[in-house]
Amino acid sequence: MSSSIPTVAVDVMGSDLGPEELILGIKRMLSEDKSQYQIIVVGNEEITTPLMMRHKILNDSRVKSYNAREVIEMDEKPIQAIKSKRDSSMLRAIDIVKLGTADAVLSCGNTGALMAGGTLRLRPINGVERPALGTVIPGKTKNFVLIDVGASPDPKPESLVDNAILGANYARVVLGVKNPRVGLLSNGTEDSKGNHLVQSAHKLFKEQNGVVNYGGLLEGFNLFDGEYDVVVCDGFTGNVVLKSLEGSAKFFKQIIKEELSKSWIRKLGIFLAMGALKDLKKRLPIDKFSGAPFLGLNGLVVKAHGSSNRKQIAGAIGITLLCLRKQMNRRIMEDVQRLRDASEAMRRAAGSSGDAGGGGS
Amino acid sequence: MSSSIPTVAVDVMGSDLGPEELILGIKRMLSEDKSQYQIIVVGNEEITTPLMMRHKILNDSRVKSYNAREVIEMDEKPIQAIKSKRDSSMLRAIDIVKLGTADAVLSCGNTGALMAGGTLRLRPINGVERPALGTVIPGKTKNFVLIDVGASPDPKPESLVDNAILGANYARVVLGVKNPRVGLLSNGTEDSKGNHLVQSAHKLFKEQNGVVNYGGLLEGFNLFDGEYDVVVCDGFTGNVVLKSLEGSAKFFKQIIKEELSKSWIRKLGIFLAMGALKDLKKRLPIDKFSGAPFLGLNGLVVKAHGSSNRKQIAGAIGITLLCLRKQMNRRIMEDVQRLRDASEAMRRAAGSSGDAGGGGS
Repeated sequence: MSSSIPTVAVDVMGSDLGPEELILGIKRMLSEDKSQYQIIVVGNEEITTPLMMRHKILNDSRVKSYNAREVIEMDEKPIQAIKSKRDSSMLRAIDIVKLGTADAVLSCGNTGALMAGGTLRLRPINGVERPALGTVIPGKTKNFVLIDVGASPDPKPESLVDNAILGANYARVVLGVKNPRVGLLSNGTEDSKGNHLVQSAHKLFKEQNGVVNYGGLLEGFNLFDGEYDVVVCDGFTGNVVLKSLEGSAKFFKQIIKEELSKSWIRKLGIFLAMGALKDLKKRLPIDKFSGAPFLGLNGLVVKAHGSSNRKQIAGAIGITLLCLRKQMNRRIMEDVQRLRDASEAMRRAAGSSGDAGGGGS
Repeated sequence: MSSSIPTVAVDVMGSDLGPEELILGIKRMLSEDKSQYQIIVVGNEEITTPLMMRHKILNDSRVKSYNAREVIEMDEKPIQAIKSKRDSSMLRAIDIVKLGTADAVLSCGNTGALMAGGTLRLRPINGVERPALGTVIPGKTKNFVLIDVGASPDPKPESLVDNAILGANYARVVLGVKNPRVGLLSNGTEDSKGNHLVQSAHKLFKEQNGVVNYGGLLEGFNLFDGEYDVVVCDGFTGNVVLKSLEGSAKFFKQIIKEELSKSWIRKLGIFLAMGALKDLKKRLPIDKFSGAPFLGLNGLVVKAHGSSNRKQIAGAIGITLLCLRKQMNRRIMEDVQRLRDASEAMRRAAGSSGDAGGGGS
């Protein structure tokens, strides 16, 4: 993060909707937010340059182009892809961050490759074992961050505490919460509940001495109640929950639509109530928070949905810039250090009280 | 299962809505289904007898009463409760099954106590390590069984194959599917996806030689697509997913209601479209499948929601009787035996081919 102007390298290839949708997303961002930042468009210039010319973003001084001739496809095996496609838009964008020319990567491409490439090339922040994927989910009274939604399916308990630090700092920036309250997702709220991982992590959370504002266990029932700003879980559970919620939302939308179109009176009714549906959509921050960062790396790596439209791309760039401007990663490093100091102090205290009381009672 | 007439012991205490709601559920069942069965009402007769008299179910020859003076409360610690409250309605109902006087228990009470009491007193079916909690979830084109939704938060991979057998037999009975297709819930559909547990179980599923009609991994996105009749997962993930879905449904219902009541024109609109909402509710089998059985025990133990209303209680009794009439447990035992035979045959084949090819190439 050497540049003083926040700079985002956007991998415009490998999206489901093609590079033009990303170029249009960048264009939207440029016209909506006139402040100082840099966007580096990374992709095959034979394709990207004509698109950038057609949509007149090349004459904006905040835009640069970087050539990368290969594309990592959605269905490629991550490790194989990052080994063989060194001149891919995704890896070039990551390299630009590694070199310090940009501060963040944004990509709609292959999630596994982005995670593997980002981790291998940028490396986790000192003290963090693995990055975690965080995402914003709408709730009744406020939105919350769910983390991890897919980076580590089998984490150690310690990683769940790291995830809390990563998620809390993301929540600070994107939700504007000063001291985010963290909950640990479980199958019940009693202390005895949870699988082995959750039970061990719950213990660690109680010992971490306030680095994380830990509120305890929560159930799926209470996800949307607004009691927590950050909900921590392993990457397997988070991924399954997130995708199940998306699946159910799609399912409900479809059956409601089917039922509503069964008669003209229902159609008229829903026409009259349409304003509610529009307001409802506004309430759900789907476009604004369409990007999900891999948190905990040296440099910011943001994954947007493979099928993100221009509005969502603009939203994801906006969130990325916000993370950079608020120096999220510096704060994460400080918190990780505080956690280490706290556990070091605790170990020492346990050692000395152990010595003092060694022969007693 | 000694009685020829299917018999259900209903623990009418320990529900959130009180014993009267359960008595009314039984009354509803008795009037809706005039066939041959027995219901044993288990609870404190000082409370239950007056209620049964008031609602005129005592004169139905299919109803019996059994006295139990204690109640296990919702917030009691399961193991402690089943040790100390030997005369509780829940344990008495389980004992009635153990003695062969009834074939099934239905309870709205403390889930942990029901699981622990049922497992300790009735014991798992020979070859099944632990019972699993299965539940029916509505999907786009058809309903499916999700199993396990809470019995074992840390199962072995072998238990997921057992869960498939349990879930498939439940699906056969309650969904009427002849050869239920089973999917394993994961964070992606490629063979390389999953946590360690899912990866090991996926391998076991491929080796089980057709006892289970295994279709492979599925993601949360595809839960509602109707591709699978049974979705298998560990009890932690299943519990979190189920409760998250319930939480989100409640959340959406609330915000839609809020938006719809914001103006008279919206209210009029939704009044006209009301038929759609009613039909929608009919499409979702919430009352019919409100009971979730702990499958894999010698005897059937069915848990109904703590806040089940009379309609849901009647539905749960109906499902319980269906499981008994279709001899679900006998079929489970046969499948477990087939699985054992298959793995035994495979072990032998591997042994002999290993001998034959031992010195080769």
